[in-house]
Amino acid sequence: MIKKKEDMIISKITKMRDGNGDVIKNEILGNLDMAKHARMFSTFTLNKGCSIGYHTHIKETEYYYILSGNGVVSEKDGDKEVKAGDIVITGDQESHAIRNDNEEPLVLLAIIILD
Amino acid sequence: MIKKKEDMIISKITKMRDGNGDVIKNEILGNLDMAKHARMFSTFTLNKGCSIGYHTHIKETEYYYILSGNGVVSEKDGDKEVKAGDIVITGDQESHAIRNDNEEPLVLLAIIILD
Repeated sequence: MIKKKEDMIISKITKMRDGNGDVIKNEILGNLDMAKHARMFSTFTLNKGCSIGYHTHIKETEYYYILSGNGVVSEKDGDKEVKAGDIVITGDQESHAIRNDNEEPLVLLAIIILD
Repeated sequence: MIKKKEDMIISKITKMRDGNGDVIKNEILGNLDMAKHARMFSTFTLNKGCSIGYHTHIKETEYYYILSGNGVVSEKDGDKEVKAGDIVITGDQESHAIRNDNEEPLVLLAIIILD
């Protein structure tokens, strides 16, 4: 089955996970298309100064695959730069945040796979 | 944890799933980083005339999320065009193939999530 880009739901989330500014969510898969062991398959676009706040995952792994732009990821051991093609892996009981300090929008694909 | 683009394994697969030509695989996640309910998280680049042949998935769902370029997907009910931003959803006992007829490379992200 093919789901076309123009049939996906775009929404704006303000202060996502207590982050800053707005995040634009493009829901690639909704509940109807989602695999049994997944619960998120969306892109997020963060303009300059915007972030997804620090949060923890339990009994699941979230992947942030960076599609374009640059960002700063916060993990337990500090802040790290990421660029297009990098992936952030956040497993059971691990935490992360991500922000964009640059003019170029940061676009990432977020996928959560249940344990 | 962050895995950098430059640490990913790139390989060439000839006649993938009995398709045509070569497919360039960029393994984003290997066995070490893979979630329990996933078994593939890679991009594939198909130049003009190249394809991944028709094959069936059992007790898993494969997603082809199109990152750039255009392609033709074959499913049980025929051929369909896909472009960047579209997603191909192939669930339990379903089949698919994908090919690139255009000059621009087709790049897709392939993710398999186990049932």
